[in-house]
Amino acid sequence: MTGFDLSARLGRAALQGVADETALSTDEGAVDSYARAIWSGLTEPGDGVAGLLVQAVGPVTALEAVLGGARSADAIRAADAAEVTGDQFAKGLARWVPRLDLPALSAGWEVARRHGVRLIQPGRADWPAQIEDLGPHAPLVLWVRGDPSVLTGLGPSVALVGARAATRYGEQITVDFAADLAAHGVAIVSGGAYGIDGAAHRTTVLAGGVTVALLAGGVDRAYPAGHAHLLTQIVATGAVLSEVPCGSAPTKWRFLQRNRLIAALSDATVVVEAGWRSGALNTASHAASLGRPLGAVPGPVTSAASVGCHRLLRDSDARCVTTPDEVRELLGADAPVTASDGSRTDDATRVRDALSARMWRDSSDLARRTGMAIADVEAMLGFFRLDGDVDHDARGWRLVADSR
Amino acid sequence: MTGFDLSARLGRAALQGVADETALSTDEGAVDSYARAIWSGLTEPGDGVAGLLVQAVGPVTALEAVLGGARSADAIRAADAAEVTGDQFAKGLARWVPRLDLPALSAGWEVARRHGVRLIQPGRADWPAQIEDLGPHAPLVLWVRGDPSVLTGLGPSVALVGARAATRYGEQITVDFAADLAAHGVAIVSGGAYGIDGAAHRTTVLAGGVTVALLAGGVDRAYPAGHAHLLTQIVATGAVLSEVPCGSAPTKWRFLQRNRLIAALSDATVVVEAGWRSGALNTASHAASLGRPLGAVPGPVTSAASVGCHRLLRDSDARCVTTPDEVRELLGADAPVTASDGSRTDDATRVRDALSARMWRDSSDLARRTGMAIADVEAMLGFFRLDGDVDHDARGWRLVADSR
Repeated sequence: MTGFDLSARLGRAALQGVADETALSTDEGAVDSYARAIWSGLTEPGDGVAGLLVQAVGPVTALEAVLGGARSADAIRAADAAEVTGDQFAKGLARWVPRLDLPALSAGWEVARRHGVRLIQPGRADWPAQIEDLGPHAPLVLWVRGDPSVLTGLGPSVALVGARAATRYGEQITVDFAADLAAHGVAIVSGGAYGIDGAAHRTTVLAGGVTVALLAGGVDRAYPAGHAHLLTQIVATGAVLSEVPCGSAPTKWRFLQRNRLIAALSDATVVVEAGWRSGALNTASHAASLGRPLGAVPGPVTSAASVGCHRLLRDSDARCVTTPDEVRELLGADAPVTASDGSRTDDATRVRDALSARMWRDSSDLARRTGMAIADVEAMLGFFRLDGDVDHDARGWRLVADSR
Repeated sequence: MTGFDLSARLGRAALQGVADETALSTDEGAVDSYARAIWSGLTEPGDGVAGLLVQAVGPVTALEAVLGGARSADAIRAADAAEVTGDQFAKGLARWVPRLDLPALSAGWEVARRHGVRLIQPGRADWPAQIEDLGPHAPLVLWVRGDPSVLTGLGPSVALVGARAATRYGEQITVDFAADLAAHGVAIVSGGAYGIDGAAHRTTVLAGGVTVALLAGGVDRAYPAGHAHLLTQIVATGAVLSEVPCGSAPTKWRFLQRNRLIAALSDATVVVEAGWRSGALNTASHAASLGRPLGAVPGPVTSAASVGCHRLLRDSDARCVTTPDEVRELLGADAPVTASDGSRTDDATRVRDALSARMWRDSSDLARRTGMAIADVEAMLGFFRLDGDVDHDARGWRLVADSR
């Protein structure tokens, strides 16, 4: 052990006023939150080895494996359960152990407490389940300023993202889209940056809608500084989130990983303006990997700020979107159909929702998307095929365009 | 008979200096040209019943059937060979017979002769074979001002089309594209109208390239009148074409049908700017039906002149094109690969050229495109399938995207 243990008493003391009250009210919950809070400080965003370990044996046992060292029985059992190789585990330790500095970690939690930042975690009522689509790359916790319950009551949501170096054209479209979408009850997710992001958040705040900003650094610091007031406004009516603890700097890696959270939290992603190498294309790519609908707004071919959007229109499955109606259509096209009680209607609907008319998907992918067994998914696909509703070949399954 | 017969002597006298010398040099050729010239005056563009009759029994026999009336043995035999119903034939007669006015028809030929307009027809060396892809809707003749041989020596060609009410943005893109394409030896086909069409022709003339204008009315009249000088310039280095005889007015129907000729004559069609109901979308639709690659140039979503382009990007297989390079890429994607001697290299290449990575085509369609027997096409497809180069299902055959 390295000078601290994972007792419920310690966890409760460290996270009082930061983690969920209900979580802290049981010993198991308190130690679980404590372990996750520690993991959040040990890892960089998207650390898949940490994700696999925590998924396989839970945050407490995974952390005990780290504390025990690579050759401990705990470590060997955990790595085995997570299907992590000895080498991966050893490299993980090399990343995590240097950060195992409890006073530094607790200082971050103290900052969180002072700023009213809440820690939310998987398995609790306020955890946005859609983010688990990231699999082992899902965040281990999220740090939230604002009301965490907006995340689970988000309803339909669209990520409006784009270049910091936006043009007046791009900003105007963002304002038009965000105002209309907010008026239709669509939550707007973005990255809090200057340019398109800022216009998206600001308009939604003005329109009285719900907006969520995902930051690359800790939520205790306003980044960019010029958006301090805007971020306070977002906190008042929505939420500002990050997966890194308070006090963390927004590094390049964290910006890129933050983009996966924007894509995963949203039902659809729309790139309004983007240069040839804009980070918004990275968000678009995450949305596409997650199978979420993706839109790109065209612009003048003479505008460098639209080159990235045109690239998406040429080289990806992005739909061309030019009006707020078309954004909402995008949302309807692939978004899960949710019955009024919040549950999917039946297996057929779940499989149908998981299919795309534009992309081939294999049955294991569809099983993951539906949360159904592969055999059940394949049985359903068989029926669809008999009805001529799906195509099938070596690449997988695809919805016949006019079958909806 | 209605007062004239189809003798070679009459045909030769009527069409001297208008039809191809070689055609007129034999009795059979002279009577064939004469019959086609008459058909050109009897029909509106795209008359599929006339097309079927002429394809099935030739223009002379088809015309004799018309002259004989619906109940004549000639008519019954011709309709039967063309798989035209009695009702279709009778309705055809009702369209054609009122125009069987030889003095009026010859007046048109006289105008053609005075304006140096040439009559070109299928089966002759100067006939652009790609136009036969229109099947029974192919024109029966073309009336040409300029050098008809540019049509068969056209090389790669792109239709640059768009709104008459073009913006400066659209015109500037047209100039950029046409100048680059002309410099790369790509012929530019368009409709001679104001706006995008005019910019495309004018730039190509200035760049010393080859440009072809397809008019909706007779080529003896400059339409629009403001383009009289431009049309003269096009004639000097390229060609101005129409399927309707000299003296014919450009009607709405003829504009729409003219668009199918633009699409059929070109290896690819690019819509630069188009309003919601622009005629350029009709050209795009013809290009798509012909399986020709189609591109659309995006623009500001706030521009009414780009709404049609965005519609194509959303609802058709149109590729987003933003640079001349991308237009040439479009051309390369589906354009026939021509060996340096002008002939296709071998059957495998012909079948491969006829396949699309974007659209399913059945083997009869591929047979038509390649000019090969269906059985030969299917044998070749079998080899491609073994190599994993093509997909096959109920919709037909499609090139696997990365197999080129």
